[in-house]
Amino acid sequence: MIIGILGGGQLARMLALAGIPLGYRFIFYDPTPDCCAATLGEHVEASYDDKEQLLAFARAVDVVTYEFENVPLEAAQYIAEHCDVHPKPEALKASQDRLREKTLFRRLSIPTPEFFDITSSKDLYEAAAKLGFPFVIKTRRGGYDGKGQYVAREVSELDGIWSDLAGRAAIAEEFMSFSREVSMVVARNGNGDVKYYDIAENTHREGILRLTLNRPDDPAAKQAQQYVHDLMRELDYRGVLALELFQIEDKLVANEFAPRVHNSGHWTIEGALTSQFENHIRAILNLPLGDTAHRMRCAMINFIGQLPDIDKILHVNDTHFHSYDKAPKPGRKIGHLTVRANDLDEVNALLGKDFVS
Amino acid sequence: MIIGILGGGQLARMLALAGIPLGYRFIFYDPTPDCCAATLGEHVEASYDDKEQLLAFARAVDVVTYEFENVPLEAAQYIAEHCDVHPKPEALKASQDRLREKTLFRRLSIPTPEFFDITSSKDLYEAAAKLGFPFVIKTRRGGYDGKGQYVAREVSELDGIWSDLAGRAAIAEEFMSFSREVSMVVARNGNGDVKYYDIAENTHREGILRLTLNRPDDPAAKQAQQYVHDLMRELDYRGVLALELFQIEDKLVANEFAPRVHNSGHWTIEGALTSQFENHIRAILNLPLGDTAHRMRCAMINFIGQLPDIDKILHVNDTHFHSYDKAPKPGRKIGHLTVRANDLDEVNALLGKDFVS
Repeated sequence: MIIGILGGGQLARMLALAGIPLGYRFIFYDPTPDCCAATLGEHVEASYDDKEQLLAFARAVDVVTYEFENVPLEAAQYIAEHCDVHPKPEALKASQDRLREKTLFRRLSIPTPEFFDITSSKDLYEAAAKLGFPFVIKTRRGGYDGKGQYVAREVSELDGIWSDLAGRAAIAEEFMSFSREVSMVVARNGNGDVKYYDIAENTHREGILRLTLNRPDDPAAKQAQQYVHDLMRELDYRGVLALELFQIEDKLVANEFAPRVHNSGHWTIEGALTSQFENHIRAILNLPLGDTAHRMRCAMINFIGQLPDIDKILHVNDTHFHSYDKAPKPGRKIGHLTVRANDLDEVNALLGKDFVS
Repeated sequence: MIIGILGGGQLARMLALAGIPLGYRFIFYDPTPDCCAATLGEHVEASYDDKEQLLAFARAVDVVTYEFENVPLEAAQYIAEHCDVHPKPEALKASQDRLREKTLFRRLSIPTPEFFDITSSKDLYEAAAKLGFPFVIKTRRGGYDGKGQYVAREVSELDGIWSDLAGRAAIAEEFMSFSREVSMVVARNGNGDVKYYDIAENTHREGILRLTLNRPDDPAAKQAQQYVHDLMRELDYRGVLALELFQIEDKLVANEFAPRVHNSGHWTIEGALTSQFENHIRAILNLPLGDTAHRMRCAMINFIGQLPDIDKILHVNDTHFHSYDKAPKPGRKIGHLTVRANDLDEVNALLGKDFVS
């Protein structure tokens, strides 16, 4: 059995690390020359609009999945004409466009920040009038790790933001003063079986996830599960999906979803009975899903731009270091660590003051 | 950092699965065309006596280790002239020859069955007179999974066994009526730090390991730890080592040691805080060793000759399936399963009557 993955980054790498023990082989389709999954299988280094290569890829594998939601929809749709693709390209389509995504949330009665389509400078002024300041402007497509996002704090900024958008389609969104950011990572297979992981409590800085803590028995879990359940059913979803939510008092508001394994689920490799990566593989192959219960309370810390000294980490018991074998670059996720801990203070007590600041 | 492994079978495969997340790359040296580790790195398909290839391999990697003890000693020694090899070839030398191995046990006051060197048919008759029937004859070299072993039950069998040995060097050994077979898997790094796993209780059939149960707080642990400790210190050992022992009443008798990760340590992948594979990698790189404490009591079941239906396994919670991606062949280990269970009855209750018979 050969599994094809669109994208060959760290998520593909960790999918392969989970799938190889199950006896599967992998082919990664990624235009990047030295993508970090390549060491775990065959690498097709080709552009996403190279139909000949896409076709050869579709014919060489038994099933295709993707590791990021910015795979061109056309590529996924073209492949789906020639072999099974899970999650279906419809999920990709809904998640690639913030307007479509939030409209879907609204239709499914999943609370989401008030939003408006922005197609002109005038729309921006109208949104400001309706939402008040501050409010958020996001490009409809292509944003990740905080890219393509603006916070407008006063009317004088609007023209600058409009000009910076440079014609890119955008939405304006209510600014949320949330008490915390959480995510719900969930696996669903072709029989409609669903398994939920613990609520993940996430800390971002400069738009990039820094820290995740799993939160067993979190009071917000039930509501978050219901929202993801409805979303997955609507999308006839097969695979792992992550829904990111803001919590405001005791209410959850959906921010966005990712139709794939998710950074806030990395703790599950050691922290849960079955990792999100293994469950994604099981789900796309319509195998029984593995137990998602946690083994421990833990913290997942992202390494952004540089890796710490491995010696200083490994001497701490029950720490699990993951390097993605990627060249260090400012703002780039190049590894993570999972450690048994209840909160950030415990992490710093174990690994050294300000290990996570 | 590139790690070279002599041998590209399932042990090399699982070493790579543990080492890749730490950021290392692998080159496997194995004359077998489709060795099952090859998907996880580069494969040098060459003979162990090809000095040119051995030299190129030694130069391409930062450190070399091995996954089985029947690597020709000369190959390991030749490589050691050109790069670091851990464990040292001395450990290989001691473990490759049962006479040398048992002589080492005796010298270190590690109890071992009474044994005699067999170099002639006359030696065999003399051993019979000293040991009585039944007794065991084993070739000094090349035996594994019960190969090259005989049990002599009466004098009339001796000539047949001698002729079957066909000139291979052998030892005669006391027959042990043991109550159980156990092993002690241990990691030691270059600083002499040592970490012990739980006692593994092993069941063999037809000379091949079928089942391992980890036994936390086993009364035999302390004695087994002392024996391995002494053995590793004597060998100035770096890496994971497994010592197999027979238990007779409350005494342990050393059968053999393997200077490598070991089948009876596969349960540690999910069952311990740090797997034997990760600790072997850490040890050969002289990194701090990971905690070897168990996460759970579990059973590891080998799949010999054929794999079961994956669907019927994965529906059971907290089961962890491992396929080695090897062609099925009678008597060949092609995968294993780890499941949370206290004993064999629990395994069969979970997975179906006679899953392990």
